[in-house]
Amino acid sequence: MEQKIPVGILGATGSVGQKFMQLLQDHPWFEVVALCASDKNTGKPYGQAVNWFQNEPCPAVFMDMRLEACQPTLPCRLVFSGLDSSVAGEIESEFARAGYAVISNSRNHRMDEDVPLVVPEVNPDHLDLVLQQAGPGMIVTNPNCSTIGMVLALKPLWDAFGIDAVQVVTLQALSGAGYPGVSSLDILDNVVPFISGEEGKMESEPLKLFGKLDGGKIDMATMRISAQCNRVAVQDGHLERVSVKLARSATMEEIRYAIESFQPAIWDLDLPSSPAQCIHLFDDPLSPQPRKHHKLGNGMTVSVGHLSECPVLDVKFSVLVHNTVRGAAGGALLNAELMAAKGMLNAL
Amino acid sequence: MEQKIPVGILGATGSVGQKFMQLLQDHPWFEVVALCASDKNTGKPYGQAVNWFQNEPCPAVFMDMRLEACQPTLPCRLVFSGLDSSVAGEIESEFARAGYAVISNSRNHRMDEDVPLVVPEVNPDHLDLVLQQAGPGMIVTNPNCSTIGMVLALKPLWDAFGIDAVQVVTLQALSGAGYPGVSSLDILDNVVPFISGEEGKMESEPLKLFGKLDGGKIDMATMRISAQCNRVAVQDGHLERVSVKLARSATMEEIRYAIESFQPAIWDLDLPSSPAQCIHLFDDPLSPQPRKHHKLGNGMTVSVGHLSECPVLDVKFSVLVHNTVRGAAGGALLNAELMAAKGMLNAL
Amino acid sequence: MEQKIPVGILGATGSVGQKFMQLLQDHPWFEVVALCASDKNTGKPYGQAVNWFQNEPCPAVFMDMRLEACQPTLPCRLVFSGLDSSVAGEIESEFARAGYAVISNSRNHRMDEDVPLVVPEVNPDHLDLVLQQAGPGMIVTNPNCSTIGMVLALKPLWDAFGIDAVQVVTLQALSGAGYPGVSSLDILDNVVPFISGEEGKMESEPLKLFGKLDGGKIDMATMRISAQCNRVAVQDGHLERVSVKLARSATMEEIRYAIESFQPAIWDLDLPSSPAQCIHLFDDPLSPQPRKHHKLGNGMTVSVGHLSECPVLDVKFSVLVHNTVRGAAGGALLNAELMAAKGMLNAL
Amino acid sequence: MEQKIPVGILGATGSVGQKFMQLLQDHPWFEVVALCASDKNTGKPYGQAVNWFQNEPCPAVFMDMRLEACQPTLPCRLVFSGLDSSVAGEIESEFARAGYAVISNSRNHRMDEDVPLVVPEVNPDHLDLVLQQAGPGMIVTNPNCSTIGMVLALKPLWDAFGIDAVQVVTLQALSGAGYPGVSSLDILDNVVPFISGEEGKMESEPLKLFGKLDGGKIDMATMRISAQCNRVAVQDGHLERVSVKLARSATMEEIRYAIESFQPAIWDLDLPSSPAQCIHLFDDPLSPQPRKHHKLGNGMTVSVGHLSECPVLDVKFSVLVHNTVRGAAGGALLNAELMAAKGMLNAL
Repeated sequence: MEQKIPVGILGATGSVGQKFMQLLQDHPWFEVVALCASDKNTGKPYGQAVNWFQNEPCPAVFMDMRLEACQPTLPCRLVFSGLDSSVAGEIESEFARAGYAVISNSRNHRMDEDVPLVVPEVNPDHLDLVLQQAGPGMIVTNPNCSTIGMVLALKPLWDAFGIDAVQVVTLQALSGAGYPGVSSLDILDNVVPFISGEEGKMESEPLKLFGKLDGGKIDMATMRISAQCNRVAVQDGHLERVSVKLARSATMEEIRYAIESFQPAIWDLDLPSSPAQCIHLFDDPLSPQPRKHHKLGNGMTVSVGHLSECPVLDVKFSVLVHNTVRGAAGGALLNAELMAAKGMLNAL
Repeated sequence: MEQKIPVGILGATGSVGQKFMQLLQDHPWFEVVALCASDKNTGKPYGQAVNWFQNEPCPAVFMDMRLEACQPTLPCRLVFSGLDSSVAGEIESEFARAGYAVISNSRNHRMDEDVPLVVPEVNPDHLDLVLQQAGPGMIVTNPNCSTIGMVLALKPLWDAFGIDAVQVVTLQALSGAGYPGVSSLDILDNVVPFISGEEGKMESEPLKLFGKLDGGKIDMATMRISAQCNRVAVQDGHLERVSVKLARSATMEEIRYAIESFQPAIWDLDLPSSPAQCIHLFDDPLSPQPRKHHKLGNGMTVSVGHLSECPVLDVKFSVLVHNTVRGAAGGALLNAELMAAKGMLNAL
Repeated sequence: MEQKIPVGILGATGSVGQKFMQLLQDHPWFEVVALCASDKNTGKPYGQAVNWFQNEPCPAVFMDMRLEACQPTLPCRLVFSGLDSSVAGEIESEFARAGYAVISNSRNHRMDEDVPLVVPEVNPDHLDLVLQQAGPGMIVTNPNCSTIGMVLALKPLWDAFGIDAVQVVTLQALSGAGYPGVSSLDILDNVVPFISGEEGKMESEPLKLFGKLDGGKIDMATMRISAQCNRVAVQDGHLERVSVKLARSATMEEIRYAIESFQPAIWDLDLPSSPAQCIHLFDDPLSPQPRKHHKLGNGMTVSVGHLSECPVLDVKFSVLVHNTVRGAAGGALLNAELMAAKGMLNAL
Repeated sequence: MEQKIPVGILGATGSVGQKFMQLLQDHPWFEVVALCASDKNTGKPYGQAVNWFQNEPCPAVFMDMRLEACQPTLPCRLVFSGLDSSVAGEIESEFARAGYAVISNSRNHRMDEDVPLVVPEVNPDHLDLVLQQAGPGMIVTNPNCSTIGMVLALKPLWDAFGIDAVQVVTLQALSGAGYPGVSSLDILDNVVPFISGEEGKMESEPLKLFGKLDGGKIDMATMRISAQCNRVAVQDGHLERVSVKLARSATMEEIRYAIESFQPAIWDLDLPSSPAQCIHLFDDPLSPQPRKHHKLGNGMTVSVGHLSECPVLDVKFSVLVHNTVRGAAGGALLNAELMAAKGMLNAL
């Protein structure tokens, strides 16, 4: 790529926006040329307006960039959206109508009939769904953070054996709630056994992700999913305990082989954010652990452990996903890289 | 009860032993007359030998009691055992052979053919299994802390509809590992997705608890159970997310009614440690929470929440149990109270 | 007291307000007859309007009480104020002008020339400062939570030897910041080395508390104080590490004796919230600890430990205070009890 | 350096040993050729014997190295010692007598008259004290983790104005206690206000560090130091709140200038582990924070914040030090690098 593609970030001061900026500094293909936030911050230098709460300092290059309004008058054709769902729906539509490619992490358009919901290693072909959009721009979304980890771990099983049913219980990190998010008084010495809307997303989004694009629409997959979600006192890394009923019977050896040998279809594209290993399988019963393993593959590798027979369904295992990288900004970025590699951004 | 029954505590300096002492001070039926610990502490005043790590101070009455060896020469006929499983097996047998009633919280004898594994609200009739023991004493056990919470919540469903299968994922408290137990470096900002032996206990003990005492032996129940256990940064209170496949179909209303109207068979006995409510059902989606609700009913009430249809099995819910009270010392104490009420301690 | 004194609570839905309600249920002298909150909640049952976040459930008696506006038309003459400092100043003045006795935990009027800032065991005589107020009502305040713990521990030294200088470093609990207060993302695996305004309060309020009421005004004490404040991952209980330079030289024995033999002037009054022990002195180097000792004396006893010679100043020690009880609602309540015992509430 | 210097690690499986190995992989000057541990592990591959508990995986190169006994028969002349203080004293002496240079992080020999206690930026000249040792080898030590952070922050003030007295209160991280170290039950929702021996080290070691090497012995500095130590729920990074009485009066501007312009004498040597910035001064009142700033300068930079006038002494500030890097293994490594740069290792 001789010249970098200019990009903007919608919701740059928020939690996901900050993660986008960390991942986009020094990106080989993209260059951030516009940072957008709510009107009250328009015109301010980013460093003054943001409450930067990442563990690493804000990249110096962004400190003095002036914040712009979230209006489709940016010097770029590609925008990453980390907007809050209270405003994302309308603003993203506006950018798409104005000809922008909107790569969104927000939930608003995920289940729209003509909007691809994509995890590049799971359903890269769904990107073609954008052809159904009115244009001239387009909206592409990635799923909820917990869903992403789960479907990546399920993908090899889905391909090899099919899946009838999934039980999942999550132990989710605090960063998934944004900032300030969860009050310390709620989570110290405690578990919060509820995350608003989360179970619904985990039970519905995989049906679209594993669905079939046919005749310009998605045929939803038919597996049954049951999710129970919990918030725990962990900064980063969602841990999920999963049980699966396969559509075809399989031995534990076949199941293990399917996971270990899994190579996603996008492998050959060698996308910049694609990890060396999509799924890392642990045999040590103490792994994966949120604090120790969430950064595997720069936060893009999903960890699987505790692979064993399930006395009730067929097979059970644990999954760990870096919720703000692979499960949010990094997942969206990988979508954009895949689109670039497929030439989908050329016409903009 | 005109005169209190003298009791001893085996393993009095340990984690469960300390809990026994908290629950037995001012007990209306029992009076602690002997504290036993490992040989190296024999003769020392309890207050000097113990590393008391409960949040409330050690009851003054015990501070100056001299520790005795764990030998069956105590001025009582009833002992509570909080011994470590590395030594509990042999010592408990020795006391039973010497004519003591041993109420044990240790795992060693739980699955012995002639040893009752009892939760008073679940299978009080199993106590008769002691008749199979060689005598003159007896051993009675209670299950693992996580199992106790789960089977109490399952009991109304078992009675009303039968149970085919159970999926459970636990978020267990640190006190379950004893002291010093889990290193702070392992659990701060983390989850430990493994507790040695725990999943096996949860998958096997309920089969005995829901089994049928017939002809002097237990016919094991046949349900399938799948457990995945995690340690989280919580001091007290195991949270469990459960899904159940019933043997007979039932509406959510019928299921809710079964739980809400559950009244254990021991209800009429009005045992001192029996809580006003065996199961408390929450409707608020934020409940139950470990820190806020583990002390319900003085730690003897089990909390259930999130009762809803399970898309994969039939019904799902959360359970919270105070792991060191109802799930350990309190559970054992209730066993002893039930035995006293049934006259089983008279002959000692 | 034959008939209970009716009282109202201003800011009843807030953090301090909830604590007032816990302490006032079943109070022998006071009876809550009015709960006041912001206008948007007026008319709602308390149980519906409040986000009750205490560990124990909201007392049933308050659940259905209708919230009233913070206006001086309540069926009582005494109000406790847990109002946020953004509104407390004006509302409290309004109640005082209307003839109410306002017992406030807010900082707004603390340093007013005619408003007593009182800790009953430290400067009970300062209550007479209300005579300087225009009337017909009055405002009485208690100091900041960290200050209260410190001055109670300093009081015996002040009385016996005088104090020239105080160095204090605090490790403060999360509940001091109210709810939602500190974000979990800020405090997990971390310390926040700053609490806005806190160091200034700790450096100035003791000067008034140890000042002399003379001719209708307070002669400020002249000691120098240096405070450094930190927030740590603890729910309740401020720990403070203090070093003191005395005005007169004293041996460690004399210092220890002064603390151990300290008996506050209000001792004889036997106020309902007065703890059996005002200061509990620990010799065990592992004590006091926030989680284990903050509830001592129902949260009204201040713990002191680590009493030893200071190589730089004269003596050093640690202090632990229950910040939301002794350091806030309980401190204010004790002020009101003292006023009642002195007959100051009779004329209202 | 054309050829790397072979080095051994004593106590390689321990907490400090693991940190040495992380810092020594790919070191430009040193190459690990021997790993030593207790006898029971001799002969085992490192990867099998170690309980590796760092957040990053153990460097692959060490996994198959065979553990050796801690005996002076290693194929190197330089050893780093992370031995437990229960055995370090004798073993280190044995290696020194056998001609090894022992760079130790243990406390045993720190205060020996002929053993240098060195922080390279503070007292590099003290290394010459090894000339007083009997030879043929030598022992060089670094101070306690908390001391290192404090003396680095004090050094500019000491040089510019002299220091009369220091008050320090610490909030220390869990990793300082080794593994398993602090029980999670002791620190969750709590502070432990005591660390055995720590206050004594902080009050005595700086006197040697700021002492003067004269005629083959150290003239101890005469400042008075008062330390109060606490353990908090933080993984890495000791925070310290410090107040200082200077020997000569100085304005805040002069003090700030002294810190900001501080350039250690070893600066020109450009040692591999020497950070770009020895002291980083923060102006933001929310900094430094343990989790966010302990890794500054690869864990070798000390952070200072909250610089302000002290109403009791002269100046106060906060210090943050990465306790296991700068405060332990990294500090020792910098000592070795300084010795290499000065040619002290040539004769071995």
